Amino acid sequence: MACPYQVCEWRSPEDLTKLLDLELGEAGQAPAQTLQHCRDAIHYSVKTNHPHFFNQLYVGLDHYAMVGSFVTDATQPSLYTYEMAPVHCLIEKVVLEKMMEMIGWVEGGDGIFNPGGSMSNMYAMNLARFQRFPEVKEQGLSACPRLVLFTSEECHYSVAKAAAFLGIGTKNVYVVPADQSGKMIPKELEKQIRTAISEGAVPFMVSATAGTTVLGSFDPIEELADVCEEHNLWLHVDACWGGAALLSNKHKHLLKGVQRAHSVAWNPHKMLMAGQQCSAFLVRDKTGLLQRCHSACASYLFQKDKFYDISCDTGDKSIQCGRKADAFRFWLMWKALGTRELERRVDHALEMARYLTEGIKKRDGFRLLMEVAPKIKERMMKTGSMMVGYQSHGINANFFRMIIISPWVSTKDMDFVLDEIHRLGADL
Amino acid sequence: MACPYQVCEWRSPEDLTKLLDLELGEAGQAPAQTLQHCRDAIHYSVKTNHPHFFNQLYVGLDHYAMVGSFVTDATQPSLYTYEMAPVHCLIEKVVLEKMMEMIGWVEGGDGIFNPGGSMSNMYAMNLARFQRFPEVKEQGLSACPRLVLFTSEECHYSVAKAAAFLGIGTKNVYVVPADQSGKMIPKELEKQIRTAISEGAVPFMVSATAGTTVLGSFDPIEELADVCEEHNLWLHVDACWGGAALLSNKHKHLLKGVQRAHSVAWNPHKMLMAGQQCSAFLVRDKTGLLQRCHSACASYLFQKDKFYDISCDTGDKSIQCGRKADAFRFWLMWKALGTRELERRVDHALEMARYLTEGIKKRDGFRLLMEVAPKIKERMMKTGSMMVGYQSHGINANFFRMIIISPWVSTKDMDFVLDEIHRLGADL
Repeated sequence: MACPYQVCEWRSPEDLTKLLDLELGEAGQAPAQTLQHCRDAIHYSVKTNHPHFFNQLYVGLDHYAMVGSFVTDATQPSLYTYEMAPVHCLIEKVVLEKMMEMIGWVEGGDGIFNPGGSMSNMYAMNLARFQRFPEVKEQGLSACPRLVLFTSEECHYSVAKAAAFLGIGTKNVYVVPADQSGKMIPKELEKQIRTAISEGAVPFMVSATAGTTVLGSFDPIEELADVCEEHNLWLHVDACWGGAALLSNKHKHLLKGVQRAHSVAWNPHKMLMAGQQCSAFLVRDKTGLLQRCHSACASYLFQKDKFYDISCDTGDKSIQCGRKADAFRFWLMWKALGTRELERRVDHALEMARYLTEGIKKRDGFRLLMEVAPKIKERMMKTGSMMVGYQSHGINANFFRMIIISPWVSTKDMDFVLDEIHRLGADL
Repeated sequence: MACPYQVCEWRSPEDLTKLLDLELGEAGQAPAQTLQHCRDAIHYSVKTNHPHFFNQLYVGLDHYAMVGSFVTDATQPSLYTYEMAPVHCLIEKVVLEKMMEMIGWVEGGDGIFNPGGSMSNMYAMNLARFQRFPEVKEQGLSACPRLVLFTSEECHYSVAKAAAFLGIGTKNVYVVPADQSGKMIPKELEKQIRTAISEGAVPFMVSATAGTTVLGSFDPIEELADVCEEHNLWLHVDACWGGAALLSNKHKHLLKGVQRAHSVAWNPHKMLMAGQQCSAFLVRDKTGLLQRCHSACASYLFQKDKFYDISCDTGDKSIQCGRKADAFRFWLMWKALGTRELERRVDHALEMARYLTEGIKKRDGFRLLMEVAPKIKERMMKTGSMMVGYQSHGINANFFRMIIISPWVSTKDMDFVLDEIHRLGADL
């Protein structure tokens, strides 16, 4: 798709500070100035919906989702109670149920939308811990043995952040080796579990990944579920990125066994373009574990003498108090597009990725380019022609990591990417 | 202000489920249907900008803030790195600095916007713990003595939620009695600290409140800071609700001593109507404590070989990965209105509260009404004439808790509230 504008118009922090009139003063200003601030903010922002934006793990948002966000911005619901957000408490429930259906939890489960996948992974860790040691909620970890969890070396960094934040400690995240394609090796997991037990620690959870951050790999969930069952461990699947494959009959095999997970994190704002943050934490438990784990029973919100069914008051399942209506955007675009169009979009993105892979194989010089990625990235940002993230991985030096999501990108855009990288790096 | 529409059009969960066409299907639908969904969502949502919305601790949002949210919705920045959100990394910095100036941190500090005051209180607790026991990040709490923190019985329930989530445990939140007006009693705090020490526990933090949830009380920060200094405790001030008073020359004395706090939580989406979630966590430390405490140094985002000043990449200070540009709405309305208008709004809200208090004193029967609050609330919701939260407090039965924020409410609206409560409860 030809695009008449750049992905970004690069300015250094120093220059941009001078260009924008940032200071906050005593007096107000004329509406025309305020409008100019909006224009500037748009002008110097990255165009995340641009067909050549292939940066980190999301792409702008669907147009229906954008309209949805305007609706909730204007009405400002907050999802602690049904009386404060009647429409949105019901819509969140419907969306969660549909997602659980796709996971394959035929008897349903529970869940909550929250501000991002990192939060979802924290929810998972706290639930796993609470289910095993309910006394932690009151007594804290200082009364507990050393708890250990397992994840692969390819996991998202939020697993370590969560362990630090929840008082578990990053050293108690045991890192399991992955194979060459980036999948966690179940035999290595078993080894690590035995090691932890031999040290006197208590394993409580495995965090698998469906769609890893760098390689886009899917851990073998079925085999990991076997290991978890044997050792009585909570199985969490971080499907923030890869969950969308569940919508595709062609690709859902990538998450085979996901219905055996105890919890799943899945962010429709990534591959499905539902707009940030649209992030679901889903749990198979139906006994109210989520609420028991997080409730504080604030008397000013969750009165017992209400005149309606208080099971609609979902706020006490959350670690937040005020909570935005993030499910609405996703629901609205889903209604408008239908499941089949969502499926088509997922399939299209994967087709484009395959096309690009073939294109790379056909071109000379592309492996060598890896070492000059930072220099090409700088030129890319300064010309604003496209945005692709780069990074190192294992023994490989910096390389470009293409994130392909948008239903509006074509094979022409894929060709453009290769031509542009070639052009930007030709003299290096 | 006379208003041609109701605050809400009450429907039970069962009826509303029937009214809205919630189901998600295989096929998409015509644009007209999608538009109808938007209309329905607006129609059955609570009108949080209505002049008779006096419910929980926020009111809709300022019109400039709404425009700001449309801008960031459409452009979808994510604040991990400067290259992804150049405009917003700079704006967040300016807004945080301005807020720190109002707190009185003449040498500045550090901070981050995050999704809600409950999160800010978690940040505070994690920082306080990390500053005292840096090894917790890696080793976890199981290697630590029992850590104890202190807050008043009037604090927000998120303090308990945070303690549970961070593995500290709710029983290690020592609850300090408050006086009749709802302020924490410093002598009682000292008693509790001595008790904790005598038990062999390690006190590490006091969480004071500026603007309590139910009574709107301000803890005596100056005296609490003295106690904290003596015992080497981190002083956090939860000013999510009351922080706005710092903008008022007339009322900022309520937070006297706040500049001595180690950290402050302040939500402009509450009293200042900046739209949810607009929630700042501010910390006095300037040595990079926030980053050291939360960093995970993900190599795909925070490369060291970048071509610009990477101190602009604020993402690794956060417990989130993707993060919304929440400061922009507040910045835009602040630019448009100026500090003086924000001050006028705070003063106006407090004037209206005083007017209402006088009105209640003049009317017979209003104390008695407390016992019938749930019944009046039900009638209020079903007629949709206004929204006020109710709750019990100590030996007092249920009472109505008026939240007064909006600059568009007048003395007429205050009279309306009393007339309406009287009308709704006249036969009880």
